[in-house]
This record gives sequence, structure tokens and C-alpha cells, in this order.
Amino acid sequence: MKAAKYVSKGVFEIGEGTKVAPGAGEVRLDVAYCGVCGTDVHIYHGVMDARVNPPQTVGHEASATVAEIGEGVTNVKVGDKVAVRPLHFGEPHPFDKGHAHVGKNLKFIGIDSAGAFQNSWTVPAYTLHKLPEGMSLKNGAFIEPLSVATHDVKIGRVQAGENCLVIGGGPIGTLIAYVLKEKGANVIISEVNENRLEMLSELGFTTINPIKESLTEKISELTEEKMIDCAFEVSGSQPGVDAMTEVLNVRGRIVMVAIHGGEKKKVDLFKFFWSEIELLGARLYEEDDYEEAIRIAASGFIPFEKLTTKVDTLDNIQSIFETIDNNPAGMKYLIDCQA
Amino acid sequence: MKAAKYVSKGVFEIGEGTKVAPGAGEVRLDVAYCGVCGTDVHIYHGVMDARVNPPQTVGHEASATVAEIGEGVTNVKVGDKVAVRPLHFGEPHPFDKGHAHVGKNLKFIGIDSAGAFQNSWTVPAYTLHKLPEGMSLKNGAFIEPLSVATHDVKIGRVQAGENCLVIGGGPIGTLIAYVLKEKGANVIISEVNENRLEMLSELGFTTINPIKESLTEKISELTEEKMIDCAFEVSGSQPGVDAMTEVLNVRGRIVMVAIHGGEKKKVDLFKFFWSEIELLGARLYEEDDYEEAIRIAASGFIPFEKLTTKVDTLDNIQSIFETIDNNPAGMKYLIDCQA
Repeated sequence: MKAAKYVSKGVFEIGEGTKVAPGAGEVRLDVAYCGVCGTDVHIYHGVMDARVNPPQTVGHEASATVAEIGEGVTNVKVGDKVAVRPLHFGEPHPFDKGHAHVGKNLKFIGIDSAGAFQNSWTVPAYTLHKLPEGMSLKNGAFIEPLSVATHDVKIGRVQAGENCLVIGGGPIGTLIAYVLKEKGANVIISEVNENRLEMLSELGFTTINPIKESLTEKISELTEEKMIDCAFEVSGSQPGVDAMTEVLNVRGRIVMVAIHGGEKKKVDLFKFFWSEIELLGARLYEEDDYEEAIRIAASGFIPFEKLTTKVDTLDNIQSIFETIDNNPAGMKYLIDCQA
Repeated sequence: MKAAKYVSKGVFEIGEGTKVAPGAGEVRLDVAYCGVCGTDVHIYHGVMDARVNPPQTVGHEASATVAEIGEGVTNVKVGDKVAVRPLHFGEPHPFDKGHAHVGKNLKFIGIDSAGAFQNSWTVPAYTLHKLPEGMSLKNGAFIEPLSVATHDVKIGRVQAGENCLVIGGGPIGTLIAYVLKEKGANVIISEVNENRLEMLSELGFTTINPIKESLTEKISELTEEKMIDCAFEVSGSQPGVDAMTEVLNVRGRIVMVAIHGGEKKKVDLFKFFWSEIELLGARLYEEDDYEEAIRIAASGFIPFEKLTTKVDTLDNIQSIFETIDNNPAGMKYLIDCQA
């Protein structure tokens, strides 16, 4: 069998992988498709070597077919089509208060251990969510990132009819926008890349380029001065952090989706006091977020094919990562792991 | 009758005031005691002249006796002892979503219009909360700042048994600590002023001086690694803002009590993502916060006399403000407005 391995900064290699027989409570999967996540790109850039321990197979946005089940596995059977929730829960710690998905001892499958960029992948059975009849395996590869979006919208407590702003219209921001729209919220996307703006407009979204016009003035106009009930900061930038407080109305919420590493950003804390706004951190997903993502995906509400920039095979993984680096306006790249 | 007026930076003057006959829906009060708020000190420093419109009578932490009632007033009668919730609600705006206490058109009585540092004060009847039998008028002057504290704790959704940290042990921080203690929470206060630390220890609180020892290490020890469920940032300082994220556990909450004006502070947004923590803005109070403050005050749980640094008369108002400037470790100063 074939496995792609991240070897060192900028280098993937294709080699012979190993089929791992499933132990008790485990399942061996035939991987179908696996999306490329921003985190995989970070790994490719060499900034996560300490955590990844190369050479290692990465990838975690996978759809698959159950190939073999280990002892005691009852939630799936051979032949089932599944999406994988790639979390390995460690020992609970009082610090976690029962929230294992962000717990102290959480390990992420595909970063901290072997991932899905290979033909065959063995994972704990509890990570599997069955795909409904009729859902394609290509669409199944969107369940993981879509679950990030359903988690973010859940954390934001968004109700139908509310005005929402997504700051940053990349793959996650766009999926958040679709989940919001499906909930009946009014969605505006702020994005600076003209190619993405054009694509988002074609998909039917109201967009603003904050470099070309005043974000707050345009939002005031669009919302008839009601402003934003819930903003999603997905840009990871200082201008995004400035915007997230400026656009909110009284008791408005901000969901912090982006990973703000490096130097601390400046935040308008006065506005928190003055208008009693909230900043809510959101990371990964919980079991119910996967079920919600599967429900929305199955409804056909999201045109996944339009969000798919390219599908290519494992053999071409090196070229896919090079393409992503040269095309920052792309949306989702899928790797076909079947051959 | 006597009225103290803020005239210009650093200057109060005592002069003849005017008894204002109550109009429909209004009540004329004989003011009893009025506490000095940090905001009054800002006014005294001349930084709020544009809003205050001097010469003006300020002061808003008042207890009083009803002297005269206007047409249609039914919630109080002459002779009732009351605390005043000094908010004048303007026209509702869609931006406010019904939260009038932080609404666009809110006016604050005692800042935007005449306050309580005078013998007689006329206010809307709806601002009045009756003090229960047996509560002294001196204690009644604590209801306004105590309502800030009950509001903050409500916004923080604190439950009995939770570990809470108050960053900044001044008058509001100390009242928050008492409300938390009354709710059955475990309370730690972080404070840098040695006089205040001594006083807080004598009052029975667990304290940490973060200049002398590591706040996070000490909290880890005190909480057996559980860390903080809800922190209250009352310091208004960059070290306070650094601490508020560092001490929290998974899904921990921060209540933003301090008014962070001026340059924007740097905030660890990564921690929001990583541990799904929340930052919750809190300002002023709502009607139920007054009722909760009155309940707690009536229970005798808070030794208000120990929190009272000095009581002095209206005639000495200039000297009280000078004393406050020279004694930053003081707690609450009350002005007796009866003579």
C-alpha cells in the first residue's frame, strides 16, 4: 500500500506504507478522500516539526470505507462509509472540566500520530461517524472542516434572523457562512482577496472588501444601523481583530476561530465594557457538531463541488502543496487516497 | 439648601442649591449619604469636563429619604428610605436590543445631569429602590456600587464551588469578592498595594501580590491545578490583562469590569482558541442587580463599616477629594449630605 510522508520543510515523499491490523476498539479504514487543511500547510512549511515528528504521514479531513473491525467494535461494520473525527482523548484532568475535545491530554490524530494521506488508516472506532446513504465520499471529506464551522456557530449561539459577519472568506470562513445561512441568519463576509470575493459573490454571498470601503459604514447601511449580532474572526490579522469589536451591537458576540499565534494582538477592551460584548473561543468540534455537519451536508445546501479547487492523487501530493503555496486564493484541495 | 458643585479641575465649591419640585413621575429626595466613585475622582481631575458641563453637582452613590412625590408616583411614599439607580433611559434604538442600561441614548444621572452631592435631589421615581426595614442610610449608600458587583457576578454566571479570581482589590473588586463569597465561590484577590492587601487579609480573603510571587503558580497550588473558572479584571492594567487569560482553565470566563480607555491593550487571543475561554463585558447594572444587592446588604454579610475609610460632610467635600488623591489605598469615602 501507498503512504505519503512529510519528510522535512517543503518535502513530501511517497513510499510503501503498512496496513495496521485493528486492535480491540479499533477500525482499519480504506481511505477515500482527504482534504488539505491549513494545518497541513503549516506542517509542510516546517513550523510544526517538533510536534509532528517527521517522517510522518499527516492529513485528517478524511472520508473512508470500513475495511476491517477490531474486537468489540459495534458502531460500524465492514463496508460502511464514514467520516473521521480525529481526536484521541487522553486522561481527563480537572482543568478540562469534562471538555475532552480541548483537554490537557488531547492528541490530534494526523498531527500527533499517523494521518490519512495513505491508502489504509487504523483509528479508534469512536472517531467514526457514518455517512448517510447517497452522500459521496468526496463530500464526506468536507465533514471534518464543516464540523469546525458547526461548532463555531454553536459557540456563537446564533439565531435565525440575526446579522452575522465572517471576517476572512477562506475555506473555514466560507463553511461558517454556509452554516449561518442554513440557520436563517443574514450573512456578510469581509475578505480582502479579489479572487475569493468574486467567487463568494458568485456563490450568492454579500461581501465587503474592507480595503476598498469602510467596513463599519457599509455594515451600518446593510443592517439599517442594527450592526452585527455575531462576528466570526477567521482572518488571524490585526485589522480583523480591530474590525471584530467595531462592528458589534450591544451584547454582540465574537467567535474567535483564528489561531492567533506569535505576538499578542491589540484589542479594544473598552468596547467590551461599554456595550457588554462577548469574545468566545472556539476550537475543533464535539460529537454533536459532526452530526450537525452531516445533516447539513446531506441536505445538499452546500455546493461542495464549487468549493473544491482541485482533486489529485496521492502520487501528486508534493505538487498539490506547491500549488497551494502559489495560489493563496484557492479553496479546498482534496487528495484521492484510493490509488 | 446646600449643594456642592464641581467647578473646574481640582475645585469643588459649596453654594446655595435649588429644591426642584417633582414633576409627574418624579420624586424629590432628602439625600442622606453619597459615596465617592472613581468616576467622581476622574471628574475632579478635569478629564470629563466635556460630558459634565461644569459648574455641576455630581455624585451618584446615594441613599435618601423621600421628601415629596410628583403626580402619578405609586412605587414610593413620603418618608420611605431608598437607594437610587441613577440611569435615565432615552429612546430605544435597534442597536441596543432592549438592553437600555447600556443603550445608545442612556444618560447617567450625576454625570450627564445633576447628582447627589446636595441636600435635596429630584429624580425619576423608577430609579428608586426601597431599603428594607433596619438598613441604615449609611449602608444604603453602598447599594449602587454593590449593584455593580452583583451585575458583574451575574454576567460571569458564577456557581457555588467555583474558583474565582478578582484582579484588583479596590472598592469594586472588594465588593465583587464579597458577592462571590456569598454565592459560595472560592475567592482569591490579586492586588499590588500592601495596605489594601493587609486590609483584605484582615477581612478574611485569600490574597496574592503578583509582584512578589508568581500569580499562576500560586493559583495552581491553591486550586490543586484546577485553576480559575471565572476571573474579574478590575485593575485596568496591562499586567491584569495578561493575568486574566493565564489563570483560566478550559471554558473559563473573564468578566471585563475595568474601563480600559486610552491605548488598546495586548490580549492573548491564542488562549481563547486553545481553551475555549470567554471574555464577557459588564457595565453598570439592571433592576434585578439592585434587588440582589439589597438582599445581600440586608443579610449583614458585608461589614460596610470596615470598608468605609471616612465619612465627612458636604462642607468638607474639597478636602475629601484631596485626601483620596493622597491616599490611593483607601476604600470607600462617604459624604453626609444631610447638613
